Amino acid sequence: MGKKVFHEVVSLESALKNLLNSFKEKVRCPLSEEIIPVKEALNRVTAEPVFAKLSSPYFHSSAMDGYAVKSKSTFSATEKDPVRLKIGESAVWIETGDPLPEGFDAVIPVEEVNIKEGYIEIYKAYPPYHDVRPVGEDIVATELIIPENHFIRAVDIGAMLASGILKVKVRKKPLIGIIPTGSELIEPERIEEGFLKPPTLIEYNSSVLANLIKEDGGEPKIYPIAKDEEKSIEERIFKAYEECDLILLNAGAGYGKEDFTYKIINKLGEVIINGVAIKPGKPFIAGFIKNKPVLGIPGYPVSAFICYNLFVRPLIELFLGVKLKKEEKIQAILSRQIFSTIGVDEFIRVKVGKVGENYIVSPVGRGAGLLMSVVRADGYIVIPSGSEGYSQGKLVDVYLWKTKEEIDNTIVCIGSHDNTLDVIYNYLRKKYPHISLSSAHVGSMGGLIAIKKGEAHVAGTHLLDEVTGEYNIPFIKRILPEKKVVLINLVYRIQGLIVRKGNPKNIRNFEDLKREDVIFINRQAGSGTRLLLDKHLKELGINPSEIKGYENEEYTHMGVAQAVASGRADVGLGILAAAKALDLDFIPITEERYDLLIAKEFLDLEIIQALLDIIKNDKEFRNAVLALGGYDIRDMGKVIYEN
Amino acid sequence: MGKKVFHEVVSLESALKNLLNSFKEKVRCPLSEEIIPVKEALNRVTAEPVFAKLSSPYFHSSAMDGYAVKSKSTFSATEKDPVRLKIGESAVWIETGDPLPEGFDAVIPVEEVNIKEGYIEIYKAYPPYHDVRPVGEDIVATELIIPENHFIRAVDIGAMLASGILKVKVRKKPLIGIIPTGSELIEPERIEEGFLKPPTLIEYNSSVLANLIKEDGGEPKIYPIAKDEEKSIEERIFKAYEECDLILLNAGAGYGKEDFTYKIINKLGEVIINGVAIKPGKPFIAGFIKNKPVLGIPGYPVSAFICYNLFVRPLIELFLGVKLKKEEKIQAILSRQIFSTIGVDEFIRVKVGKVGENYIVSPVGRGAGLLMSVVRADGYIVIPSGSEGYSQGKLVDVYLWKTKEEIDNTIVCIGSHDNTLDVIYNYLRKKYPHISLSSAHVGSMGGLIAIKKGEAHVAGTHLLDEVTGEYNIPFIKRILPEKKVVLINLVYRIQGLIVRKGNPKNIRNFEDLKREDVIFINRQAGSGTRLLLDKHLKELGINPSEIKGYENEEYTHMGVAQAVASGRADVGLGILAAAKALDLDFIPITEERYDLLIAKEFLDLEIIQALLDIIKNDKEFRNAVLALGGYDIRDMGKVIYEN
Repeated sequence: MGKKVFHEVVSLESALKNLLNSFKEKVRCPLSEEIIPVKEALNRVTAEPVFAKLSSPYFHSSAMDGYAVKSKSTFSATEKDPVRLKIGESAVWIETGDPLPEGFDAVIPVEEVNIKEGYIEIYKAYPPYHDVRPVGEDIVATELIIPENHFIRAVDIGAMLASGILKVKVRKKPLIGIIPTGSELIEPERIEEGFLKPPTLIEYNSSVLANLIKEDGGEPKIYPIAKDEEKSIEERIFKAYEECDLILLNAGAGYGKEDFTYKIINKLGEVIINGVAIKPGKPFIAGFIKNKPVLGIPGYPVSAFICYNLFVRPLIELFLGVKLKKEEKIQAILSRQIFSTIGVDEFIRVKVGKVGENYIVSPVGRGAGLLMSVVRADGYIVIPSGSEGYSQGKLVDVYLWKTKEEIDNTIVCIGSHDNTLDVIYNYLRKKYPHISLSSAHVGSMGGLIAIKKGEAHVAGTHLLDEVTGEYNIPFIKRILPEKKVVLINLVYRIQGLIVRKGNPKNIRNFEDLKREDVIFINRQAGSGTRLLLDKHLKELGINPSEIKGYENEEYTHMGVAQAVASGRADVGLGILAAAKALDLDFIPITEERYDLLIAKEFLDLEIIQALLDIIKNDKEFRNAVLALGGYDIRDMGKVIYEN
Repeated sequence: MGKKVFHEVVSLESALKNLLNSFKEKVRCPLSEEIIPVKEALNRVTAEPVFAKLSSPYFHSSAMDGYAVKSKSTFSATEKDPVRLKIGESAVWIETGDPLPEGFDAVIPVEEVNIKEGYIEIYKAYPPYHDVRPVGEDIVATELIIPENHFIRAVDIGAMLASGILKVKVRKKPLIGIIPTGSELIEPERIEEGFLKPPTLIEYNSSVLANLIKEDGGEPKIYPIAKDEEKSIEERIFKAYEECDLILLNAGAGYGKEDFTYKIINKLGEVIINGVAIKPGKPFIAGFIKNKPVLGIPGYPVSAFICYNLFVRPLIELFLGVKLKKEEKIQAILSRQIFSTIGVDEFIRVKVGKVGENYIVSPVGRGAGLLMSVVRADGYIVIPSGSEGYSQGKLVDVYLWKTKEEIDNTIVCIGSHDNTLDVIYNYLRKKYPHISLSSAHVGSMGGLIAIKKGEAHVAGTHLLDEVTGEYNIPFIKRILPEKKVVLINLVYRIQGLIVRKGNPKNIRNFEDLKREDVIFINRQAGSGTRLLLDKHLKELGINPSEIKGYENEEYTHMGVAQAVASGRADVGLGILAAAKALDLDFIPITEERYDLLIAKEFLDLEIIQALLDIIKNDKEFRNAVLALGGYDIRDMGKVIYEN
């Protein structure tokens, strides 16, 4: 056939330009119209301007309860010399909304007349159309109500109905076919039938894509999962080709031997994009089978999400002839350095918090497989292909997935991780639905520094001073001596060794970490738990190099527990709640104090008062903490230290 | 019964407090839950926190295509002394997503190995878990996915499915009954059956309310229209009481004899609010029948809309346990003085435009009956009860019904009115869906002043200089001599006398305006058409006082035509297009030039370039203008003057 085959990764800009231009050339857009009842037209897009059929009001009507009169007959009325009009003849009772009787041209409100023996007495002249809603006061027949390419709102529906319009021509919703491909994929419903065992994977991308399409005004159609076989995928494509306006293949967009997207589009039509210099989302493919656009969406969930926003949304805009809402953009200060690959536009998910006057932005997990990084993120930043990264303190544009108001009502908690923080978050939202809590786990020391730098409202901390045996206070005095803070106890908790159920390696104490057959999983430097470990090792005279896995770090208690549960490690140091959550065994070592450090300048904020209310007063919250296991709440909410 | 009857109008603040507190006391909120499939949960609100059932991935899987190995076996590998592993035994082919075989703990990407005689050669050591996605990398079983009181998004659906959750407990949608009341009301569909004749009115408020409820996450139920009879309304209420969580009566909330809302709620339950000091929306009523809230929503469409936002929305928030999105707030400069009644919180609909660096805000029609004022508005401002109004130039808070981006992409056109402006708007949106045009009709002179003050991008103008006989230029030189502007011709148009179809009063020229049986409708002072009229009257030696209706002013050509069409006047001066639109007769008087004046500083803006593109290049637009009738486009787009 002599078709050009290429694997050329192009820039985002040129990929988008190529896609949109080819699309405009080949595809009818905006889409053809359909006529639907006005009452069902909410959020649909007008396919033509809508002009009023009738005026509203369509007759001269009274604006008040009172008497209809001929204005002329009132012209001579004064306080001294009132005019008398006979009720039922020259003055006719009328209520709000009633039509003016023929020949009458003004209304006198009932409060302004004096009724005497079948007459009304009036004391001033009334001009024509006094207290009359003239024809067309609201809508004049033939006038424009709403233009073409307009999202129909509730009030637009009202105005159309008021002007006698019962049907409206709107754009058809683009029908977008989603074909999940992958022999290992199963529909989520099959879990219940026991189908979930390695190597099967739950197919959930199609649901994410379908719901994104719905929100953007398209109509999704999910086809049954295709096996990684050319024939199976082709069958689906043929069906979708007949039925849909746009086809999404997910995934099979890489270069592996089971990645058929390129091959099939190239065989049946023409590939116009094969790889884009973005991260995540690089193996994106676009092509046309005749005039039908087919996109190969990468399989990793974050890549799929990014590619949807970058490529599918603009096509929906073209189909509908409108611009969809963009993410709100704010400027925020980067809390730490980010490196990025040169030559690639990188989309980095971030958390944003408003601390004092500044928005502070921090990157979250960057892997393309981390859907939870999108769930937890507040938005994203883009590091353009020309940049190797951004330095700490840089002012960057953040595109929000939440409203600015939500960000403004979020408590920024940076520091040590404890499972009770998740519980606080839940009870906070229960009682204060407009307040959120965003917690970043950088260890106790990182928390103190964040408070010092004004990047957090609150820090969780459990730093044990080797010399004094005292928790937190010595560190606060040393690290942020100038800062006005208050330290409040959250819980006492038990730290111990987390091992697999039944303790198969029979681990009893720190000495066992030296054993040849034992692999340890550590916490990051600067965490209170790491300090605790190092203190014990020092006391016992154990050299870290004697411990296999000492250099492997996790950032949370749950991360440690998960490493043990999955067999990646045999043992780690952590809290009972984490062991319990994953049904692991636990060897208690010591009780420690876990406090919250709060910058005093933020103490009066509604969000911080709400946090303290939960900690000090919420019994349900306290019970939920106790139910986690391993916690003592004897000093919960007590002020430990302030300056 | 000894029930307290009252008509006490209370402040908005105390009404809201009273309503919300009574509601929290009497009504179960948040609402009870229901369990629904995760796949159908978009935009629903979680009724409990959702924790992961399974980890994702739930087995250690390969992150690359390559070979699974035991990391230990690679530890001695170097460039010089590679390690050889037998394929199928110590090195097993593995593809992305495949589970690691038992006993293997690392993956070497295929690009990094050399295959030789059934062996792979590797040149460096690989640590454990190299290129492996460990269990729980994305989601750890038991971890919090989304909290309670959270609007479920597409990505949340993905994360729930990925962690094995197929069903989710969400808040029930509040079922909100809407009972339209009014003997004169008919359903819009009955228009087609010929039921629309005075005094019947089209009932459209229920559709507006229902669609607002839908958008806010409630479930509306519209009951058949109730007559203004106690029995008819009571029947509906009994039904709604059984079925709904909240009942809205619309209207009958005034004090007229057919206003039953107060009476019925007071009889069946208890009224807690009867009148609120707001404008529009004063006759709002709230009460409870046992524990069921019943609200009396006023009948005027703008009042109903305002009362919905003020009172119904907060109740939906309580039912759902979430905060709904608020309108975005910006600050803008008031373009003219606004008076307001003291003692009343007044909600004033406004247009907003970004001109240069400033947002400029102007009030639009204030009547409670003007639904189109909401349709056309960009948002609203509130003048609090303590204020008598705001002066021109004041910086005020504007609550937007559009996005800020839409406002930023709106051409602000202030000045003389011409029907072609509506046509430009339509063709602009057709070609540039993200651009809008907002036109305010304040007359030619007002337009020139707006340009001078930097409150508009563009002004429509047709000012005839009596001395020189020249259009616009003398006025521009006199009024804004310093300003850099460009004047571009839009059309030549025919002005003439607009009279009723068939010209029943046989009006032929300006002389006839003096006739005793002829009522005139005028345009406002400062409009080009008023100037034109006055010039002709002067030439003919006619004194304005000789003309009946000279003092009655309309602000647009369509307003004049509508006054004639409705019989409010017999004749007015205006353009042919307006006469044609309402099927009126037209006596041509003169051709005049209608130009657009553009401030040069805005000429390079995309929105102004788009406007010029339509004017200069769009053939469809030109045909549409010609189809209006009475226009000549010989100089359309031509630069008439610049400085």
